[in-house]
Amino acid sequence: MNEYRLLIETSDTKGLVYSISKVLFEHNLNIVNNAEFVDNETNEFFMRTVITGSFDEKVLISDLEKVLPQNANIKLTNSNKKDIVILATKEMHCLGDLLIKYMAGELDANITAVVSNHDSLRELVEKFNIPFEYVSHENLSREDHEDLIIKAIKKYDYELIVLAKYMRILTPKFVNTFPKQVLNIHHSFLPAFIGANPYKQAHMRGVKIIGATSHWVTDDLDEGPIIAQDITRVDHNYSWEDMRDAGRNVEKVVLSNALDLVLKDKVFIYGNRTVIL
Amino acid sequence: MNEYRLLIETSDTKGLVYSISKVLFEHNLNIVNNAEFVDNETNEFFMRTVITGSFDEKVLISDLEKVLPQNANIKLTNSNKKDIVILATKEMHCLGDLLIKYMAGELDANITAVVSNHDSLRELVEKFNIPFEYVSHENLSREDHEDLIIKAIKKYDYELIVLAKYMRILTPKFVNTFPKQVLNIHHSFLPAFIGANPYKQAHMRGVKIIGATSHWVTDDLDEGPIIAQDITRVDHNYSWEDMRDAGRNVEKVVLSNALDLVLKDKVFIYGNRTVIL
Amino acid sequence: MNEYRLLIETSDTKGLVYSISKVLFEHNLNIVNNAEFVDNETNEFFMRTVITGSFDEKVLISDLEKVLPQNANIKLTNSNKKDIVILATKEMHCLGDLLIKYMAGELDANITAVVSNHDSLRELVEKFNIPFEYVSHENLSREDHEDLIIKAIKKYDYELIVLAKYMRILTPKFVNTFPKQVLNIHHSFLPAFIGANPYKQAHMRGVKIIGATSHWVTDDLDEGPIIAQDITRVDHNYSWEDMRDAGRNVEKVVLSNALDLVLKDKVFIYGNRTVIL
Amino acid sequence: MNEYRLLIETSDTKGLVYSISKVLFEHNLNIVNNAEFVDNETNEFFMRTVITGSFDEKVLISDLEKVLPQNANIKLTNSNKKDIVILATKEMHCLGDLLIKYMAGELDANITAVVSNHDSLRELVEKFNIPFEYVSHENLSREDHEDLIIKAIKKYDYELIVLAKYMRILTPKFVNTFPKQVLNIHHSFLPAFIGANPYKQAHMRGVKIIGATSHWVTDDLDEGPIIAQDITRVDHNYSWEDMRDAGRNVEKVVLSNALDLVLKDKVFIYGNRTVIL
Repeated sequence: MNEYRLLIETSDTKGLVYSISKVLFEHNLNIVNNAEFVDNETNEFFMRTVITGSFDEKVLISDLEKVLPQNANIKLTNSNKKDIVILATKEMHCLGDLLIKYMAGELDANITAVVSNHDSLRELVEKFNIPFEYVSHENLSREDHEDLIIKAIKKYDYELIVLAKYMRILTPKFVNTFPKQVLNIHHSFLPAFIGANPYKQAHMRGVKIIGATSHWVTDDLDEGPIIAQDITRVDHNYSWEDMRDAGRNVEKVVLSNALDLVLKDKVFIYGNRTVIL
Repeated sequence: MNEYRLLIETSDTKGLVYSISKVLFEHNLNIVNNAEFVDNETNEFFMRTVITGSFDEKVLISDLEKVLPQNANIKLTNSNKKDIVILATKEMHCLGDLLIKYMAGELDANITAVVSNHDSLRELVEKFNIPFEYVSHENLSREDHEDLIIKAIKKYDYELIVLAKYMRILTPKFVNTFPKQVLNIHHSFLPAFIGANPYKQAHMRGVKIIGATSHWVTDDLDEGPIIAQDITRVDHNYSWEDMRDAGRNVEKVVLSNALDLVLKDKVFIYGNRTVIL
Repeated sequence: MNEYRLLIETSDTKGLVYSISKVLFEHNLNIVNNAEFVDNETNEFFMRTVITGSFDEKVLISDLEKVLPQNANIKLTNSNKKDIVILATKEMHCLGDLLIKYMAGELDANITAVVSNHDSLRELVEKFNIPFEYVSHENLSREDHEDLIIKAIKKYDYELIVLAKYMRILTPKFVNTFPKQVLNIHHSFLPAFIGANPYKQAHMRGVKIIGATSHWVTDDLDEGPIIAQDITRVDHNYSWEDMRDAGRNVEKVVLSNALDLVLKDKVFIYGNRTVIL
Repeated sequence: MNEYRLLIETSDTKGLVYSISKVLFEHNLNIVNNAEFVDNETNEFFMRTVITGSFDEKVLISDLEKVLPQNANIKLTNSNKKDIVILATKEMHCLGDLLIKYMAGELDANITAVVSNHDSLRELVEKFNIPFEYVSHENLSREDHEDLIIKAIKKYDYELIVLAKYMRILTPKFVNTFPKQVLNIHHSFLPAFIGANPYKQAHMRGVKIIGATSHWVTDDLDEGPIIAQDITRVDHNYSWEDMRDAGRNVEKVVLSNALDLVLKDKVFIYGNRTVIL
């Protein structure tokens, strides 16, 4: 039986769980999984409920709207695979990891295309019978190149865009074209080492741990809401290239874990933070 | 305002959250925090709700009983500090960690006494003005010694007994005297290295990671429900004594974290597992 | 310039480093990297020295033999890529990870073939233009099947055999055919959960951390010298299948890290342990 | 038998290990442990050798000077406990952890005094019969207060000064008074969240991992060479105070591990980094 995910974000009021669960009960729905969170500082309420059963979506939403505060954000998604477009540059580890998971049936997504500013990943991508779009940035302004990238993405179905080590800075235009739809992997333990070549920075600083961060992309570079982070240990024996190589294992696992959470509709964006239910 | 924790364990039925939240709503209670879990294999439902407000405990429990399945386990605790008795042998790290936290006001518990089969920890314990009971096991059968230990514990108030590196094997009698009340720290990443001197075992086996496990004590030695685990990395440079020393940092943090979860009534025992809400 | 790795294992004696470094100095070699370890319990000495320079291998070895104890084990390897044959069954994550690394040029090895007891990985392997050998075990005794597997391996060049989730139990014959050449990934934090379906075992036991272990294969199943281990956290929300899925990320990273150490000749087998220099 | 630690830092030259080991051999010394590191970028050589035997220190040093480059830094320490003075402010967790280790005989140091800008830790410190110096900063300029702190420290024997959550900013004068002698614990995963209240910063940024960093103190606040780092996981359920509480376990373990490395003379300061042998 198909599962649905009911996602509610609203200001907290007394009796909220009661009101919501009453509606679900009256619609005769089965609750497979339920998780809530209230931010006691801001009084914001989040709920993710996995339901099964037969119901009329419009009536359900409408009944929920009746009992929820006016500002409530209600979303109902199904558990079908989501379409994603992947952007990458030259590195294979994150992209390759997603391709293998995809082929193994372990990714809750259809990869509809891979778009890159270099042609070097074509061979890998086409092995998996996925369209590859090469959009060179040479001799183009950032804006003109980005327009072509946006055009290339829009040729395909997508609910999400995954930056799998896409090494170009994005303009606000790009971000606003795909609001709350762009997931990035940053090769540092943000907010440490914002900006270019974080492994070189980490090596210079002599850190004993390096990390990676997957986050939603917002206007501020490397400043969007964090979804997942992980780390690995390094020592004085590591050159910055060794750190980069060690970091790759972390990057691919963090990106893949963050994507998994997003595909399961578990991630609420809340200001510049995430609530993961 | 005092907080109360409502703990419910029962078999899952449709409308359970609705029924419970209705009762809470009708009692005009504020829900500070709410977490649920349903084991979809066994259909068992767990809920921990933190509430504030003024209410009549008996009426609340009775109203909940009316809407819940007959087998439901309902418990209402307050957020007062719990009394604990600590058992230890010779090692200071776990005991000392709890004493420092206690003095710093960072432990949600009153340490009412420390009981030991050696006298060597007396000096430390008495610095903190806590009664110390020395119950030597010399020239005593295991059973006779344990009877004296039980007697020593019972001189004090306790809701929980914390084995902070108490290095004596407990009999079923002891376990049954304090059912679901005894918390242990085991110096291995259970179920690896069950039994005596796990660090020597770990060294012999050449592991690259060692750990510690905090668990409820049941009749089966080292087999009770696990609450918390953590690990640290070792390598060929570590003698077994080095592993033991490195392990101590893990042991004290794991025990302290597990105790914290228990003191906050977050740990449900479920068969041989725990659900932590 | 090509690098060489000088690997020495011997019983420790006074002046050992002096004697060895004298020979290296007299051969006018550059020492790029040097690491030693003495097991002070057993008095065993290990050294890995990375050297560059032009020298006569036979003379160098012979000069070293003159100054070292008779039982000394001296090995000189170069830094060329090693040939490896991979064995797998049905799961893609470990194999796929190695294939992506191989294609990206991040593996210090040539994958000369993949051998499997199922045909389902053929499509993946042949995408990377690597020979795939399907050796079904159906209607064959364990011994007969293994003979065919050995035959299939021997058709290719190999210095190492990597079991990338090869789910068949190996006989002593297999192990003795490829002594100190077979690397395995076990899907548990050994020695916890030896044997079949460790994730089901872990779930039953209610652990809060799961892991993976890469080790040399010896006659005793899951008992060989450990090279690398890593872990990830789980909780009561994880079914055993969720644990398996979470474990896959750990498995592939641990196998890949262990293989990397082996390919760089950093791993000494020492009794049932490893020394990693 | 007493152990000595020979610490050499110099520019690398061919035959360096040979020259050094020749001197050690000629002095008839036993090498218990030996570790080297060459930074191949800068050609800097580091060696830590643990030796036993009877020898004339001056002759040994002089013989080593003869074979080493002129800029070589040679140091010979013994394995006696080092005197340390601890500075703290109000928090007990790091200080308490060191006191418990000290009493348990697990610290390779004598704590000769604790100096604080508050009087609240006196009760704890005096339990352990250690002198406590209260130097209030009230109504004093930073400089005047620091002069009194320096005076208080100098009343006692010290080889190292350990800042166990001493929450005052230090002036260059202080740093220069105790060059390469001041160890700090910073309550963040540096270089993330430099400056005041890193847990509030971490909470605002919505990180999923928090950490702690122990480093040598230099003129630049929070910028000195890092010795040890560790992390723990947090999520949206953590208020900043919860992060702080969770961070305390990390802080005390990181500080204690870093101090242990320093007390064993394993830490070389190298520019703004450390080499740990």
